[in-house]
Amino acid sequence: MSNDDKQNKTHRLILMPSGRKGDVPHGITLLDAARSLGVELEAICGGRQTCGRCQVVHERGTFAKHGITSGDDHLSAPGENEIAYAAAHDIDLSQRRLACAAQVIGDVLISVPPESQAHKQVVRKDARDITIRLDPAVRLVYVEVEPAEMDGVSDWQRLQAALASQWDLTDVTIDHVVLIDLQQALRDGDWALTVTLWKNREVIRVMPGYVDELIGLAVDVGSTTIAGYLCDLLSGRIIATESMMNPQIRYGEDLMSRVSYGNTEPQGVNRLNRAVIKAINDLARAVTDKAEIDSRSITDSVLVGNTVMHHLLLGIDPVQLGAAPFALAISDTLDLNARDLGLSAFHPAAKAHILPCIAGHVGADNVAVLLAELPNLDDHVTLIVDIGTNAEILLGNRDRLLSASSPTGPAFEGAQILHGQRAAAGAIERVRIDVEEGTTRYKTVGDDRWSDQVAEGESLTATGICGSGIIEIVGELFLNRLIDSTGLFADDADQRHPAVRQTGRIKEFVLVSGTQTAAGSEIVVTQNDIRQIQLAKGALYAGVRLLMDRLGVDHVDRIKLAGAFGSYIDPFYAMLIGLIPDCELENVEPVGNAAGDGARIALLNVSQREIARQESRKVDYVETAIEPDFQAYFVDAMDLPHQSDPFPHLVDYLPPRQPRSSRSTRRHRRA
Amino acid sequence: MSNDDKQNKTHRLILMPSGRKGDVPHGITLLDAARSLGVELEAICGGRQTCGRCQVVHERGTFAKHGITSGDDHLSAPGENEIAYAAAHDIDLSQRRLACAAQVIGDVLISVPPESQAHKQVVRKDARDITIRLDPAVRLVYVEVEPAEMDGVSDWQRLQAALASQWDLTDVTIDHVVLIDLQQALRDGDWALTVTLWKNREVIRVMPGYVDELIGLAVDVGSTTIAGYLCDLLSGRIIATESMMNPQIRYGEDLMSRVSYGNTEPQGVNRLNRAVIKAINDLARAVTDKAEIDSRSITDSVLVGNTVMHHLLLGIDPVQLGAAPFALAISDTLDLNARDLGLSAFHPAAKAHILPCIAGHVGADNVAVLLAELPNLDDHVTLIVDIGTNAEILLGNRDRLLSASSPTGPAFEGAQILHGQRAAAGAIERVRIDVEEGTTRYKTVGDDRWSDQVAEGESLTATGICGSGIIEIVGELFLNRLIDSTGLFADDADQRHPAVRQTGRIKEFVLVSGTQTAAGSEIVVTQNDIRQIQLAKGALYAGVRLLMDRLGVDHVDRIKLAGAFGSYIDPFYAMLIGLIPDCELENVEPVGNAAGDGARIALLNVSQREIARQESRKVDYVETAIEPDFQAYFVDAMDLPHQSDPFPHLVDYLPPRQPRSSRSTRRHRRA
Repeated sequence: MSNDDKQNKTHRLILMPSGRKGDVPHGITLLDAARSLGVELEAICGGRQTCGRCQVVHERGTFAKHGITSGDDHLSAPGENEIAYAAAHDIDLSQRRLACAAQVIGDVLISVPPESQAHKQVVRKDARDITIRLDPAVRLVYVEVEPAEMDGVSDWQRLQAALASQWDLTDVTIDHVVLIDLQQALRDGDWALTVTLWKNREVIRVMPGYVDELIGLAVDVGSTTIAGYLCDLLSGRIIATESMMNPQIRYGEDLMSRVSYGNTEPQGVNRLNRAVIKAINDLARAVTDKAEIDSRSITDSVLVGNTVMHHLLLGIDPVQLGAAPFALAISDTLDLNARDLGLSAFHPAAKAHILPCIAGHVGADNVAVLLAELPNLDDHVTLIVDIGTNAEILLGNRDRLLSASSPTGPAFEGAQILHGQRAAAGAIERVRIDVEEGTTRYKTVGDDRWSDQVAEGESLTATGICGSGIIEIVGELFLNRLIDSTGLFADDADQRHPAVRQTGRIKEFVLVSGTQTAAGSEIVVTQNDIRQIQLAKGALYAGVRLLMDRLGVDHVDRIKLAGAFGSYIDPFYAMLIGLIPDCELENVEPVGNAAGDGARIALLNVSQREIARQESRKVDYVETAIEPDFQAYFVDAMDLPHQSDPFPHLVDYLPPRQPRSSRSTRRHRRA
Repeated sequence: MSNDDKQNKTHRLILMPSGRKGDVPHGITLLDAARSLGVELEAICGGRQTCGRCQVVHERGTFAKHGITSGDDHLSAPGENEIAYAAAHDIDLSQRRLACAAQVIGDVLISVPPESQAHKQVVRKDARDITIRLDPAVRLVYVEVEPAEMDGVSDWQRLQAALASQWDLTDVTIDHVVLIDLQQALRDGDWALTVTLWKNREVIRVMPGYVDELIGLAVDVGSTTIAGYLCDLLSGRIIATESMMNPQIRYGEDLMSRVSYGNTEPQGVNRLNRAVIKAINDLARAVTDKAEIDSRSITDSVLVGNTVMHHLLLGIDPVQLGAAPFALAISDTLDLNARDLGLSAFHPAAKAHILPCIAGHVGADNVAVLLAELPNLDDHVTLIVDIGTNAEILLGNRDRLLSASSPTGPAFEGAQILHGQRAAAGAIERVRIDVEEGTTRYKTVGDDRWSDQVAEGESLTATGICGSGIIEIVGELFLNRLIDSTGLFADDADQRHPAVRQTGRIKEFVLVSGTQTAAGSEIVVTQNDIRQIQLAKGALYAGVRLLMDRLGVDHVDRIKLAGAFGSYIDPFYAMLIGLIPDCELENVEPVGNAAGDGARIALLNVSQREIARQESRKVDYVETAIEPDFQAYFVDAMDLPHQSDPFPHLVDYLPPRQPRSSRSTRRHRRA
């Protein structure tokens, strides 16, 4: 075959695992050939055989199914650069080739390993099969710029020309702070640069020479905890995670006390704003320290939070969120320069994307939950509750989604409970009561043993009761009929279990005796503690019930419990006390920090941000605070598990329902 | 005529002074009718009869030329609102009407006073007839927003809806810092707002209720002086001006010493940057104090400066401008948030527009000069020199424009001159020498009298010599043949004028005796002072000559002297010593701070910014530092007025040219 013949010839190329195939011209590089068949390979260096990201496997042999023989000599032999790169990076060129170097000179079957695929699928959660396509808002490109000459052309113009000719990127702008680094970077890199581009239209970082570092941070700003997920935006992997207390707590535990602080203290909003911004900066430094990288490598970020956190993050007084009509200053997506928020730990030209809010009490964190859990794509009716100081509720399916916020208060976080505490080592998280034996067992956070499994002479050093523990205690008291469905201790409770103690007309349950606690004092559950939990669960349930009414359903197919509290509680007890409505227990699932997951999804895939924006507008918001039905539902929902709703999936477990005495009803109503 | 008939009827409307005419429907408001004929009237309030900006005059009578009778009752009678507005603002409704209120119900002739015209023509300089159309990048609009309801719609969405429905403005964004003020402003203004919009697409300020305040600042950042022009962007008028020393002077008098400081001192660039930013903030506060307004009312600004100032303003190390190839980091126009530059005295969401640079040594200040002087629209060949520490030169006409920078050094500013000083009270600025009488007369800045007009016993308290004084002294010494064309004192100079003093082999000229000065010491002009002026003017002239060569012209039609120094010097003496090339003296014109004028033009009219951008790209830059011819021109140009160029317009004034002695030539070359 003459050279001319060869040059007019085409060869069959098969790409695995996609199975894409086609005839490609003789001599084309695998990189270009793959692109022509719609398969994008990674290539930061632009085909210069220097980044090594486009490695592919040449599969040899006869593939009858595809009708080709993929011969040894069907790819061009490695050249000097490819051999040099392979030697430096320990690559066996008989197995792997750089797609930007290897030319197709015969039929070939090529495997593209996952790490070489552009927009690779990133497994989002180990335990679940939802994947997300990697396509962040920022990308790296390597360019070689014409050195400066005496022609009056600025260095930026030279870089623009290089971006246009080498990457076909036109109309690109540059953040002016990057200009501060540009000239030195060009000269340090001998006129070669790795450029970080935002949305293919703005240069936000320049690094001398070839560098493969692209770092993003997803942040979930909770009222109590701020969580950060540091992500490698080239692989999609989480590099490190870190969380810390929201320092605003010192200005008020719950949201409304912070709103009030902002509104009444001079410079209150400013102080709250600075506290949360400093915390995010600290978090960024801590999480990058863990990964041993510079926090100023962070060039993109996504931030979510409830509406009060959202406003305080932006420096906006949340006072309007404290009273009807609960008007947000802004609900739409924001694309900001991180420096404008004061996020000085990030790269000076880093971006901060803020997911949209839905309404006055349903924030960007809930939109993130939506992105992560996708109830909008499901035929089944899903209920998602994210329980914090406020419970944010999403209910619906692909046809319609509703949202609401219920003022549960901080009882589930251990506040307003006599011996309540946050979930930390020593907190009681599991409880079992046995009236037959007259015993009580419990487990504490950080210890696998039940209290009755501890060796003689040793004891679990319990420090208090956390949210999940409280729920189990109330559930167990109810199961054992030590309290009735109105939540009151039964008249005979103290006779039926030795831990029930009566002082005057008041009963209480001694969960741990003084000898078994860290502090040497008892841990007790009081009638008031039970009432606090009833109030909290009643509020949540009333919100859920209201949304179910609005959606026109009397049961839900699936329940997802989001947030730290949601991950700890036992769905059985949650349903037993009527925190959530009736459902197949196996369809009740803790989903962890779904808000953080959603923030990370929006960080890894820019089109998810637009999806979040559109979906957030479709969600119908129900304002519980002004719904006349809410109060009625709330009162009904105080009972265990509920005054009138059936709980078919619990029925075998429930104690026989006692006729409600007029006395207890009155007491109940008075609460 | 029935109502139906009326409603189908049209009337003839004549608008003066534009002369626009047309038939408009019965009942249309004058505001809408004028708009339909292409005449835009001012209307911040959007036709609500509250801003009073659309006042017009109803001219009554029969206008044969136009074929109409403009009758008393051809406009609708004033309604309640218009009467109330007129009463409150002392408007005679029989003379003036609000165009947004008055309806056309018959043929009318209307005069639109200049102040009611949108995009009015602003007279730019009192002394000149160039006008600029007022069309700033920012504008005010008044909107009435729907009060918040319990519908989950954010306040920003409500404002967006109002902007769309009341002003047809869609796709408007909001700077997130404005969100901080939005909710309070809406409530303080009872849901009425005056919004400042940037380029009709971004909300950058919100003020409760109706406010007619739109303020911009034009800043010329010179190496020595920073000048600010505070402008009312509703009228186009300058409200106040202020200037101050550039505090960078403490780090180096001339540009190259500042470049060197930035490059060698730790944090040098940062320090230079902070110094100039602080100065602009101080200037903004000073100039707004003068006008008794808050500096945070400034919502738009235009900044210009030479290339080193330009880079330092942006925080960019100018080190590349100190050596070939003199690469700029960026030459293109920049639209920035003023806060990103640290301009904290401005409104937090104010804009800063930076005009483009031309090349390494021809900066945004020169582009501003181009905007102000428009050599690019002229058939004649204009030379514009802006003399500072560097002289920036523009030469050409509508066909072609060339630019260059000449390293004149700071001699013209009084530096490197024994008794030199800046132009301030007490500085000698005019000098006349008479060899016949053996006398010398002078004038000082801040005093109208010549030194020989002072009463007996009194004297002018001279403190030193400023740039224009130095030039006149050298010119007068040359005219009186006390120095020869090489700049050396003539051998017989001390015999011909008593002020020439010989000490050893050195001669000098005693301009003021010790008894007449403030400090009690003499003011003397030395041989070295003359040499410094020769070096400075030689550098400037060589740059001009180089550009003339490149343009292919041997004379210029017009010379404009820009900058403070250019305004002080007498064109005759400037030409006499060969600072500028030969030209009709009446065509040599000082144009003041043309760079500041240009900045102001770009502030007042947004399309001038695009013109600046386009024109700056068309200018051909000549880098004097690497032109082989430059050195030769420079050496030739040391002579007074010039070794070989003819100065036909000076010939009558020049002393007879003496044959150049080999001695003096040698001395000259040695310099």
